[in-house]
Amino acid sequence: MAGEKGLVLLDFWVSPFGQRVRIALAEKGLPYEYVEEDLMAGKSDRLLRSNPVHKKIPVLLHDGRPVNESLIILQYLEDAFPDAPALLPSDPYARAQARFWADYVDKKVYDCGSRLWKLKGEPQAQARAEMLEILKTLDGALGDKPFFGGDKFGLVDAAFAPFTAWNKVFRVCVVGGSWLGQSVWVRVAYS
Amino acid sequence: MAGEKGLVLLDFWVSPFGQRVRIALAEKGLPYEYVEEDLMAGKSDRLLRSNPVHKKIPVLLHDGRPVNESLIILQYLEDAFPDAPALLPSDPYARAQARFWADYVDKKVYDCGSRLWKLKGEPQAQARAEMLEILKTLDGALGDKPFFGGDKFGLVDAAFAPFTAWNKVFRVCVVGGSWLGQSVWVRVAYS
Repeated sequence: MAGEKGLVLLDFWVSPFGQRVRIALAEKGLPYEYVEEDLMAGKSDRLLRSNPVHKKIPVLLHDGRPVNESLIILQYLEDAFPDAPALLPSDPYARAQARFWADYVDKKVYDCGSRLWKLKGEPQAQARAEMLEILKTLDGALGDKPFFGGDKFGLVDAAFAPFTAWNKVFRVCVVGGSWLGQSVWVRVAYS
Repeated sequence: MAGEKGLVLLDFWVSPFGQRVRIALAEKGLPYEYVEEDLMAGKSDRLLRSNPVHKKIPVLLHDGRPVNESLIILQYLEDAFPDAPALLPSDPYARAQARFWADYVDKKVYDCGSRLWKLKGEPQAQARAEMLEILKTLDGALGDKPFFGGDKFGLVDAAFAPFTAWNKVFRVCVVGGSWLGQSVWVRVAYS
């Protein structure tokens, strides 16, 4: 049964993209029905009907209408529930900056992180070097602020936070011991 | 000198991503200074300072502050100039749908189109089959409407329209003669 706001989330527990949506719903205090899609056992008809283009979780159903792609779902929640706590700032330039960094995480972290896991030898070494640059770039964007947008948890934090679950593989594969203490990874993971 | 709205566009004439921004600025009636970046001759210091992360055009400078990534620039223009004609609808669900299809164009068309141009033999044949599916999917999204969002030119049209310049290569490489007359490609290119 959908939550009192008519929200149903089709998700798979381990997905960092699904976790983004769960984080955003929690931050906004929006109740929803969670529906686990056991992707190991295939894709349900409901998922395929709800996201016929990409055939992927997460899907947010709102009064039965599907919204797909995690960052688009997060922005939909901003628009559809304007009275809930916002993840995007109101200033147009700050909104663009938040979208830029969320997009950066989207384009870089998952892709490079997946290659780190899957590859061996020289290709893995290349991915390692690349991930180090990505993390340094994110560290620079975070700067001395507690959150990417400043004092308040926001869109970029929701986009990036699920990947802290990959902390161990990053510790082992990328950053070693020396740089780790300074990294955005640790700062996000343990703040 | 920046336009009266304080807008400067760093661009390269042939870029479909830059064209998106020019289309949006024209639709919104916003004057701006156009600065051609001759990418064949390298990247200017201004470009590298304005987009140190991706080092790519287009960059929109607004009162000297840079906004990067074409779709993020388009959404910035929505937020920063709310009195100009909107490219996004006001309904939250329709906004999410527009973002979904603009994102689809972003993820699929350029990447697959580039492979079509660069590859030969079997890999090109694979890209051809892929592009046919992409175009059919977009055709389905357009349906019988004059524009992706309905009766009004919008974000998805601005995101997709620049790729109509690739019409010839698509005609030759992908669709042949039979399917072309029905395709979203032709409908967008010649409507």
